[in-house]
Amino acid sequence: MEYRKIKDEDDDGGTVSDDIENLRGKGFPGVASVSNVPPREQAKWKRKTIVTLALTFLTSSQAILIVWSKRAGKYEYSVTTANFLVETLKCALSLAALARIWKNEGVTDDNRLSTTLDEVIVYPIPALLYLVKNLLQYYIFAYVDAPGYQILKNLNIISTGVLYRIILKKKLSEIQWAAFILLCAGCTTAQLNSRSDQVLQTPLPGWIMAIVMALLSGFAGVYTEAIIKKRPSRNINVQNFWLYIFGMAFNVVAILVQDFDAVMNKGFFHGYSVITTLMILNHALSGIAVSMVMKYADNIVKVYSTSVAMLLTAVVSVFLFGFNLSLAFFLGATVVSVSVYLHSAGKQQR
Amino acid sequence: MEYRKIKDEDDDGGTVSDDIENLRGKGFPGVASVSNVPPREQAKWKRKTIVTLALTFLTSSQAILIVWSKRAGKYEYSVTTANFLVETLKCALSLAALARIWKNEGVTDDNRLSTTLDEVIVYPIPALLYLVKNLLQYYIFAYVDAPGYQILKNLNIISTGVLYRIILKKKLSEIQWAAFILLCAGCTTAQLNSRSDQVLQTPLPGWIMAIVMALLSGFAGVYTEAIIKKRPSRNINVQNFWLYIFGMAFNVVAILVQDFDAVMNKGFFHGYSVITTLMILNHALSGIAVSMVMKYADNIVKVYSTSVAMLLTAVVSVFLFGFNLSLAFFLGATVVSVSVYLHSAGKQQR
Repeated sequence: MEYRKIKDEDDDGGTVSDDIENLRGKGFPGVASVSNVPPREQAKWKRKTIVTLALTFLTSSQAILIVWSKRAGKYEYSVTTANFLVETLKCALSLAALARIWKNEGVTDDNRLSTTLDEVIVYPIPALLYLVKNLLQYYIFAYVDAPGYQILKNLNIISTGVLYRIILKKKLSEIQWAAFILLCAGCTTAQLNSRSDQVLQTPLPGWIMAIVMALLSGFAGVYTEAIIKKRPSRNINVQNFWLYIFGMAFNVVAILVQDFDAVMNKGFFHGYSVITTLMILNHALSGIAVSMVMKYADNIVKVYSTSVAMLLTAVVSVFLFGFNLSLAFFLGATVVSVSVYLHSAGKQQR
Repeated sequence: MEYRKIKDEDDDGGTVSDDIENLRGKGFPGVASVSNVPPREQAKWKRKTIVTLALTFLTSSQAILIVWSKRAGKYEYSVTTANFLVETLKCALSLAALARIWKNEGVTDDNRLSTTLDEVIVYPIPALLYLVKNLLQYYIFAYVDAPGYQILKNLNIISTGVLYRIILKKKLSEIQWAAFILLCAGCTTAQLNSRSDQVLQTPLPGWIMAIVMALLSGFAGVYTEAIIKKRPSRNINVQNFWLYIFGMAFNVVAILVQDFDAVMNKGFFHGYSVITTLMILNHALSGIAVSMVMKYADNIVKVYSTSVAMLLTAVVSVFLFGFNLSLAFFLGATVVSVSVYLHSAGKQQR
């Protein structure tokens, strides 16, 4: 089995077995143009495409749910309990997937839940980084308002690219770097409004915090990819289980510190509505999609996926909520689209 | 001589004579990296760079003179007489350059002023196209305001690219097309202001006129390049002379039709100031620079040159007039810069 895997990866085609595999490949009309690519590569490409599309769709609908919930009124529920439920749901879904795999394939070294300290010791780190970033978030609002913060968040794109290069030591071609700068500029342009220029008046501590937050967020993403990719044959659901267990633990601490009284007095599920439930479900599925993208694609794909989702959200909001699209949005969307094209065209240069 | 030219163009270097030429080439520090390029190519590249920089500088200072003259007060002089003087000055400068060439090199088939009907018949066409475009300009203001028109003018970038491809049959690589779309989006982004969204409310006739004007302007530019490049060995000053003679003729008509009474009553030079004189001088030199760019580079270079000039103007205006740069400007300038890089990176792909 292991031999066959390696053989397939090295094989660049032309044999009879290859032709037979190609016939199978023709079942997917979308991949007709890659029919001379080895079937294992095709399967990888298909898996990568599916997780990317899932992440784009989920991120986009997440933003729409947030707009919807804001329209429905103020947040009545405690955010910490909702976050805890998101982590719990992700954990449960990972376990359910594992149970099915154990039933079908039996327990192997790759899919058993038990682990070593060496493997598990790094898993709390991303959760910790996000915690620090979320704490900083409260302080940055002393320097910028919420729309300004949305614009500064686009620095994440650049920090992810730089840390991806430094930590994962993966190369982007010059064209792909150009595309990445365009992605950042395009996303920011699409979000411009009449008050955006105030961002330029952000005082120095605000800029420093924005950059630190971008670095923390980029580092957490890249570090998660490093953890997940370190053991390529390890089942993703086991890896997710351990990531989310620590997420649950950190959120228990957050409930105790922040919302203990409210939960004790009003109950854990106070203020939950249909839309809250949908948001929790969506966050859980998005979280799993992010992990999948880290496993089968990378942080660069994740950044593109969430950026395109931002544009999709705006377009869908026109129909759902009667929003108007600005000229800046069209220009930003054009730049992002060209960036997506250049990222893929730049692969050949690498 | 003709043999040597062809030889140089085919020669890819490595001979002794090449090394000697390279020593000469080292006089220009900026071209050190291209020292293995044949010397004739180096000379061409140098000429192309000089005319491009001249056009960028002149276009940028032109915009600054316009801002300056607006600050100084309303236009007091008649625009048609100023345009006539610009064409006359260009004609005179071309003749002066020719006189020097005749003195040094003698009169040849390439630099004699006399011409055939076959050569000269196409020269009035660009001037006519610009005339029609300028007439349309009066009507489009029924649909958009002046800042809106500035934004719609960026359609020129796209129309120039498309007509350059169709009429001159020169290929741009896919990356270069992507760069061209970015140039248009970046220039528009840099010009965004709080009232820009009104452009989206432009009624259909306004859009059609904007597109027709962009096509006319793009066609005039591409057609001029076709005329000038049709006879590569013909001296540029002769070609300019014939272009500008027709420019003079059309502007005489414009004076007679539009400003005859004013010129008769107040005099030809009524309302001229130092700044008017500077603007006429600048327009004349810019016009000659455009012709030079058409001869030694192309319309694509011209579009990049004038776009970069627009950004330079804004930066210089910060220091001269205390203008503020918006976030949109920084984003647009970033996109334009990446576009310039991609245009040059995309050459390899062609």
